[in-house]
Amino acid sequence: MRAAVVTSFDQPLEVKDVALPEPGPGQIQVRVEASGLCHTDIHAARGDWPVKPTPPFIPGHEGVGIVEKTGPGVTLHAVGDRVAIPWLGYACGTCEYCLTGWETLCESQLNTGYAIDGGHAEYLIADADYTVAVPAGIDPVEAAPLTCAGVTTYKAVKVGGVTPGDRVAIFGIGGLGHLAQQYAQIFGGETIAVDVTEEKLALAKQLGASHVVNAATTDPVEAITALGGADVAVVLAASPKVLEQAHASLRRGGRLVLVSLPKENAMALPIFQTVLKGISVLGSIVGTRADLAEVFRLHAAGRTRVFYETRPLTEINAAIEDVLASRVPARLVLIP
Amino acid sequence: MRAAVVTSFDQPLEVKDVALPEPGPGQIQVRVEASGLCHTDIHAARGDWPVKPTPPFIPGHEGVGIVEKTGPGVTLHAVGDRVAIPWLGYACGTCEYCLTGWETLCESQLNTGYAIDGGHAEYLIADADYTVAVPAGIDPVEAAPLTCAGVTTYKAVKVGGVTPGDRVAIFGIGGLGHLAQQYAQIFGGETIAVDVTEEKLALAKQLGASHVVNAATTDPVEAITALGGADVAVVLAASPKVLEQAHASLRRGGRLVLVSLPKENAMALPIFQTVLKGISVLGSIVGTRADLAEVFRLHAAGRTRVFYETRPLTEINAAIEDVLASRVPARLVLIP
Amino acid sequence: MRAAVVTSFDQPLEVKDVALPEPGPGQIQVRVEASGLCHTDIHAARGDWPVKPTPPFIPGHEGVGIVEKTGPGVTLHAVGDRVAIPWLGYACGTCEYCLTGWETLCESQLNTGYAIDGGHAEYLIADADYTVAVPAGIDPVEAAPLTCAGVTTYKAVKVGGVTPGDRVAIFGIGGLGHLAQQYAQIFGGETIAVDVTEEKLALAKQLGASHVVNAATTDPVEAITALGGADVAVVLAASPKVLEQAHASLRRGGRLVLVSLPKENAMALPIFQTVLKGISVLGSIVGTRADLAEVFRLHAAGRTRVFYETRPLTEINAAIEDVLASRVPARLVLIP
Amino acid sequence: MRAAVVTSFDQPLEVKDVALPEPGPGQIQVRVEASGLCHTDIHAARGDWPVKPTPPFIPGHEGVGIVEKTGPGVTLHAVGDRVAIPWLGYACGTCEYCLTGWETLCESQLNTGYAIDGGHAEYLIADADYTVAVPAGIDPVEAAPLTCAGVTTYKAVKVGGVTPGDRVAIFGIGGLGHLAQQYAQIFGGETIAVDVTEEKLALAKQLGASHVVNAATTDPVEAITALGGADVAVVLAASPKVLEQAHASLRRGGRLVLVSLPKENAMALPIFQTVLKGISVLGSIVGTRADLAEVFRLHAAGRTRVFYETRPLTEINAAIEDVLASRVPARLVLIP
Repeated sequence: MRAAVVTSFDQPLEVKDVALPEPGPGQIQVRVEASGLCHTDIHAARGDWPVKPTPPFIPGHEGVGIVEKTGPGVTLHAVGDRVAIPWLGYACGTCEYCLTGWETLCESQLNTGYAIDGGHAEYLIADADYTVAVPAGIDPVEAAPLTCAGVTTYKAVKVGGVTPGDRVAIFGIGGLGHLAQQYAQIFGGETIAVDVTEEKLALAKQLGASHVVNAATTDPVEAITALGGADVAVVLAASPKVLEQAHASLRRGGRLVLVSLPKENAMALPIFQTVLKGISVLGSIVGTRADLAEVFRLHAAGRTRVFYETRPLTEINAAIEDVLASRVPARLVLIP
Repeated sequence: MRAAVVTSFDQPLEVKDVALPEPGPGQIQVRVEASGLCHTDIHAARGDWPVKPTPPFIPGHEGVGIVEKTGPGVTLHAVGDRVAIPWLGYACGTCEYCLTGWETLCESQLNTGYAIDGGHAEYLIADADYTVAVPAGIDPVEAAPLTCAGVTTYKAVKVGGVTPGDRVAIFGIGGLGHLAQQYAQIFGGETIAVDVTEEKLALAKQLGASHVVNAATTDPVEAITALGGADVAVVLAASPKVLEQAHASLRRGGRLVLVSLPKENAMALPIFQTVLKGISVLGSIVGTRADLAEVFRLHAAGRTRVFYETRPLTEINAAIEDVLASRVPARLVLIP
Repeated sequence: MRAAVVTSFDQPLEVKDVALPEPGPGQIQVRVEASGLCHTDIHAARGDWPVKPTPPFIPGHEGVGIVEKTGPGVTLHAVGDRVAIPWLGYACGTCEYCLTGWETLCESQLNTGYAIDGGHAEYLIADADYTVAVPAGIDPVEAAPLTCAGVTTYKAVKVGGVTPGDRVAIFGIGGLGHLAQQYAQIFGGETIAVDVTEEKLALAKQLGASHVVNAATTDPVEAITALGGADVAVVLAASPKVLEQAHASLRRGGRLVLVSLPKENAMALPIFQTVLKGISVLGSIVGTRADLAEVFRLHAAGRTRVFYETRPLTEINAAIEDVLASRVPARLVLIP
Repeated sequence: MRAAVVTSFDQPLEVKDVALPEPGPGQIQVRVEASGLCHTDIHAARGDWPVKPTPPFIPGHEGVGIVEKTGPGVTLHAVGDRVAIPWLGYACGTCEYCLTGWETLCESQLNTGYAIDGGHAEYLIADADYTVAVPAGIDPVEAAPLTCAGVTTYKAVKVGGVTPGDRVAIFGIGGLGHLAQQYAQIFGGETIAVDVTEEKLALAKQLGASHVVNAATTDPVEAITALGGADVAVVLAASPKVLEQAHASLRRGGRLVLVSLPKENAMALPIFQTVLKGISVLGSIVGTRADLAEVFRLHAAGRTRVFYETRPLTEINAAIEDVLASRVPARLVLIP
């Protein structure tokens, strides 16, 4: 089968033929229809993070496809089913986190496209129990970005505790942000979209934002404070400065949700304001299988729209360059 | 009456005779029996914070005493009742915060011993509705530290969401910390006391700490991680470095509660760890009247112990010096 | 001024001239523009409930109007402001319930149109702090039903803990139910409307119900179970049988919210199913001032629609007959 | 091996030799040290409930013992480990309930001692992932009642949302109630024990109850109301009348937790009081593996005491008679 393989952290990926893997006990073989390109894939391919994957490996954790074969003991999915294969490729199932709805914090988890070969290929093998059914009527190319960008922002909005009437500021309206905004609205929030390009703010308007702020020309802290301050701020831009602005935009009792991972890895947290304003700063990491099922259910009900562009899998290296140069208007989805 | 008056931010307080004030509508006149000395009093007296009080004024927001007179319209307390007069001296009663159990975030609040004359005097005047009844059987000298040190740490433990079996690390076992520890235990937690002096750790042991860590000789991050990490860390030490240690001591899903206000006013928040470990950083500011009533009820039921030393009100300046020099083993309570 | 007065529990109301009352300290005089007719008004007028009001009195707790005069000490509203005067006419402001966001449970509360003269008149006097500002742009005739029917169902949906994707069954699509349905949708829920008349189900469809069930021709338990069962059921029909159906329609972990008050006053609660399915049965009573402010804010943002009919205040007795005979398609609003 | 076998719903159990079963994939063989006798065992043995087990079968879901053999793929426990085998013998692990911390509501669950052979035997076979490690230092005979009576009441107290200072009424101080009381205290509650025998009330006093009420001689509703009403009532007595008393004992905002399963299977729920007092009625069914691990951890830390009597497994039929005749002061534990 054809796959995009990381052979070395300092080389481009190689798109080449590799052996077609067979499913073992509890596993399924999936023919990939679409595989979203996430910034994490680029970090994986370059070995940017402290715990690195081991080349050669195949990245991709937004894969969606059709079950072709099932290994012994698989009961959750059958041949012909459409499934999504998310970042959480395996968890122990018996630790305190797994048993209390927080499997995404399992210390024994294995991640797809990182410790396990992922979706940027014609086929992949997955632990059946950690894949999620894609309901009928969802386009697989739309399902791909929902599998990480969707569930991650959905969870962030949940963690932020958005309730009707809350003013929710979304910092960064891209592949994640345009979904975060929609989820904030589904939870009843009134959204304020913050970005530095007018076309992304136009998209936010079209998707129902109550207010937009162009941070290139307007101080977002002043603009949001003038609206009464944000109850919740979700930050998708990978910049400590933006995180600090988001914090300063909160009203009393506000919640700042951290999702993005700036390479500087530290924000200056103002203690006085955090204490006196009763502010919460909340880290949020992807979402569970149950969260992803909810994301799909909302999409199947017509309540979200996914903006994306497709690229052939063979052009993955060019796609990565475009992402790094901020030349893509929305999520890229690779088609094998 | 005799009172300790701040006449200028760069002078010691003057203990002198001032006019005995009379209660207006909705107010009560209270004869002070005991008045705890809080670090905030020192900040107030020196004008340390951005929004400064206006000299001359009388600090003190842990006053406890007997109602001597009631102004028109007072129904909540009667002459002869014992009441406590906390930091929250007035709130609007009609904003969203006041109506949802978060009066401590009211933007119109006035603070006792800051915007309103406080308890370091023989008498004070208070808005009756914002004072809290001290139940029979509680020693007024013990009630005083509960009025701020108690309710503030009680609230911090509530905000931290401590439940039975949680490992709760208390950083700083002083006037606040020894109470925080007891509240964490009342909520069912297993406590880890962290301090740099052996006698405070001995006190923590005596009060039921499961573990103690002397941070002068042992790395608290290593020690707490070896125990499995903390579910909740409450920081009473006013130091960004301690806040950063407390953050690093948390296990996945852990919560860091900020209470103290270091003058540096910024901690470096590690973003990667906050996101991947699903950590929450929660600012917590004093507590409501309802929280204080609960604090008193727990004390009346014999479930907390208060460690304190008394000083005559006339020695307030020496008392302040002792606090600043860390020469006091526990909360100081001024007796007028 | 003209007012509808209950002079005796066994006589129709008398619409007659009574003295124009003046505001005392903390009170406002309001010129009524619109006053919704609630079933509770009928119970009040007939002395149906255990704790009865004392004739003569003026019912009505959905009054909306303009502040004409303010008594001493009023700061919250000014002459010319539009305000709503809800069921909760006064609460103590200092009990545990008032201080924790549950003023609607205050044991000292006084209710408008019951213990205090209400809105079915040309003017009324209200405790200013317990009235709620009606934002600009809201039609006072629409604000009236929101003041009780709106806030009561909004609170019921909150109490039911509706989150996105939940299936929410609304039993009874009338003056309350059509609003309950909209709030359930604003909280992200997918609604199932249950009623016995086709025109109400058509209204539900128009307002966005995902499913409708005509309980006159279809067993709602079977129909809802076939959809997977309800996560939340909100019952507005005043019938124990409907409550029991609603309970049986729940899936595991489901929540039944009780709002209506059937005169039989008891439902048979099946214990085995409640325990094994982990079901919660939750009583919900009106909403707080903060809830009402949120209701108005959502309406001002164009997120709810109110269906009503107006009647002149002078026809209140005929209006009551129509309500009792189920001859009204939606909320009736009296115009003085 | 010797086992107590239900051969027919209308016959006593037969204690006889049956084949020693071997563990399959994912299973463990456990040598039973102790097996608590629960009322549910009696219902199982008599086929009392709508969904009946299929004779012959071995009841018992409070088994504790030592792992003797592990089947293929078992990694959670090793030979020689001590484990508990609770009611939840298997759940699907992938449904919404399993993924959100509510595996006890899984529709595909299989129950130990009901659908799967249970602990009233010398050995049993269990799905390894659904057994829970018993920490060092816990006596296996004490661990047995914790495995169902403990975790069930622990969960009930959690579901009731007990927080410090809450008044918690426990109706029925037997095998379950004496544990419920201790958990309510660990969550910070102040307990009121209600029973009809003085010796059980004496036990409750000894375990720290703040108040005791002998319902044989005192009206518990009056007694509890005189104390201010209960915030939470947990009912372990299997009687609709007691449930109705417990409901009437609640203060506003109170929560009634249903655990026991009276054979009448219906309580009369007063609607008016439920709505006006904002009462919640909450069904609670056993607890998860995570809850059981917490229960063991609290016991290992010395925070609970278990009262029990042992009987030889061979005397199971006499033990059942004693339970039915209320001749046992605490939980019975069978020793094989």
